[in-house]
Amino acid sequence: MVNVAIMGHGTVGSGVAELIIKNSNHINREIKTELRLKHILDLRKFEGLSYSDRFTDDFNVILNDKEVDIVVETMGGLHPAYDFVKACLLAGKSVVTSNKELVAEKGVELIKIAEEKNVNFLFEASVGGGIPVIRPICQCLAANEISEIKGILNGTTNFILNKMVTENMDFSDALKIAQDKGYAEKDPTADIEGHDACRKICILAALAFGKHVYPEQVKCEGVTGVSLTDIEYANTLGYAIKLIGKAKKNSDGTVSVSVAPMLVSHEHLLSGVNGVFNAISVIGDAVDEVIFYGRGAGKMPTASAVVADVMDAAKHLKARKYISWEEGSDSYVAEKDEPTVLYVYIKTCDFKKTSADIENLFPNSLLIKNEHSGEIAFLTGREPESSLNEKIDKIFADNKKILHTI
Amino acid sequence: MVNVAIMGHGTVGSGVAELIIKNSNHINREIKTELRLKHILDLRKFEGLSYSDRFTDDFNVILNDKEVDIVVETMGGLHPAYDFVKACLLAGKSVVTSNKELVAEKGVELIKIAEEKNVNFLFEASVGGGIPVIRPICQCLAANEISEIKGILNGTTNFILNKMVTENMDFSDALKIAQDKGYAEKDPTADIEGHDACRKICILAALAFGKHVYPEQVKCEGVTGVSLTDIEYANTLGYAIKLIGKAKKNSDGTVSVSVAPMLVSHEHLLSGVNGVFNAISVIGDAVDEVIFYGRGAGKMPTASAVVADVMDAAKHLKARKYISWEEGSDSYVAEKDEPTVLYVYIKTCDFKKTSADIENLFPNSLLIKNEHSGEIAFLTGREPESSLNEKIDKIFADNKKILHTI
Repeated sequence: MVNVAIMGHGTVGSGVAELIIKNSNHINREIKTELRLKHILDLRKFEGLSYSDRFTDDFNVILNDKEVDIVVETMGGLHPAYDFVKACLLAGKSVVTSNKELVAEKGVELIKIAEEKNVNFLFEASVGGGIPVIRPICQCLAANEISEIKGILNGTTNFILNKMVTENMDFSDALKIAQDKGYAEKDPTADIEGHDACRKICILAALAFGKHVYPEQVKCEGVTGVSLTDIEYANTLGYAIKLIGKAKKNSDGTVSVSVAPMLVSHEHLLSGVNGVFNAISVIGDAVDEVIFYGRGAGKMPTASAVVADVMDAAKHLKARKYISWEEGSDSYVAEKDEPTVLYVYIKTCDFKKTSADIENLFPNSLLIKNEHSGEIAFLTGREPESSLNEKIDKIFADNKKILHTI
Repeated sequence: MVNVAIMGHGTVGSGVAELIIKNSNHINREIKTELRLKHILDLRKFEGLSYSDRFTDDFNVILNDKEVDIVVETMGGLHPAYDFVKACLLAGKSVVTSNKELVAEKGVELIKIAEEKNVNFLFEASVGGGIPVIRPICQCLAANEISEIKGILNGTTNFILNKMVTENMDFSDALKIAQDKGYAEKDPTADIEGHDACRKICILAALAFGKHVYPEQVKCEGVTGVSLTDIEYANTLGYAIKLIGKAKKNSDGTVSVSVAPMLVSHEHLLSGVNGVFNAISVIGDAVDEVIFYGRGAGKMPTASAVVADVMDAAKHLKARKYISWEEGSDSYVAEKDEPTVLYVYIKTCDFKKTSADIENLFPNSLLIKNEHSGEIAFLTGREPESSLNEKIDKIFADNKKILHTI
């Protein structure tokens, strides 16, 4: 018998409890022992559940119960989640978490403690919800040197951008619908400013390249600046606009990490990822590109990933799984002046002058002109970003907006 | 130190040898020991390689070498691969294979021997080439009851169908290009008749539902009957035609398994899987749908999956991984009369009569009519397949073709 405690009976935590109970036959058969849900930590009372008797509001009940082998953390936020998880690991308990903030901020320290105590610290649910991505990267692609990892990591913003294009809708109206449907919080900052995607790309970068990247090291731009016009122009040029988290290994050993709305060619599978779905693309030297797609959030999909980790921990109580990376450094994350293609949107009061500038500076670019509104949108050729920016600076305009392509 | 032998130095086997040597630093760091390529079995001589000294043409050299912990089988075919793999497992060696025919025909027996001998029998590369799919299903989705698994499992036919639509080309011309590019064999039967996809869906069905499905139990239809006209009509109706392997769990415990060209809605991500790429969709009760995408074949992608299995086996020499299923039975695989939507193509000499029949029998169906050529294509509503077939039988026509939708 393996005893499990859950800390936090919110959306994900209650899904974990339900899934452990609902699929117990299946789970016990797979792990060849009985998985028992022993405690649930929450300050609230939950009456009328089949497991209402297992609630406690005292963390020490879990910490001091020698029978508890695995603790699930689904509280979210940094405190007290960090303090509780650390204490559990130090007490020799394996921990499974869905908390991306915790892993992105404290992952390297918690992994080290888990190693020292020979217990598991698993966090498949922290990136991509139910999509299997962390374990496949660590295990299935283990023979590869990974060069790049990128993806649609936030379902809320993907829903909003998608709604804008399918319903011909402004950002604020699409956000409102996302809030009405429960996809976006009342305070949607973490999603729409890219902070959520940023934490996830930090975790993926650490896994893929072996060193911790902190969210504050990442250039992070949200989707609030994306207009319906941009989306329509991009579409006409053969691209979708998606909020992309991207991490790339540089030849000098540093990594470039960014979060921003980017143009994705209609030829690329990521462009077809719609609604609240997420997808993560990994490029390895042997395997080339692989993509993992599914529900990046939600009660049961996320619980699916948490319970899979619990099962894995239960099977490896005495043979710790290796998921680890090292501390990074300030200079480890670096912006590089790489060849790239940019999308440029311009509004001008002198259409002729601006047109002439563009044709002069970017003679072979793909262009959309709207003389009536004074708008021009185009894709540059592939050149180092600094040289593209120098040229773009020279174009006469009232207003310019620049987006990257993936 | 862990010693590895490779049986079969063809496309995949040579990729495995190259990858083990090229990424040795990375691999050894991950598995925390040294992986040594000790023997390669092949009847041919390979001069001038950095590892030319390690070849042997005698299987007993590998079988009797007590230092060899892991044997890689990349010979393909059933014999002598089966005999060699069985002998290695019985001798207490772990085996990693990319051989789908071997796993589809003999998997249940070999898994049982591996269990008895407490060694690993791993075969990630046998389905989806480099795409992580077998391990994610077994581990990451372990908390789910899987209800359906389906996918584009053969890159050659996907390339051909894709070429037909993008270049407005007949099947035979597209096949010729696939052969010229080395994607299709001189004798393309196994690919175009669906046998390759059939072996893979058998393996996936066994993994997902726990019992062996033999290729001869599966209704298998290839792509030779798909015409450019079908592809164009499907496209106009909002669908792509893909060769799909599909396995579905029925409520009575049986499974329905089939391989056939099917219509995939443009809304579904599988419709955007082009060229030689593969993708596998899994539906679980908690996670909903997840999709794995990547290169389903090729030297280095397949080698990537093989070497990842070798690394996993090396890490678990004394703690066998659980991948297992039971023997199936004749009655375990069953066709069911489920509600479905069919695509129907009709050629008629009496356009008026046929049109009237269709409008009468399928009043709300999505229709394409070409009076000039006497062709009508349409999608039925969702009804049990038997009742759809009864109705279709009643339509006046010279020629009918029916395809499933996924």
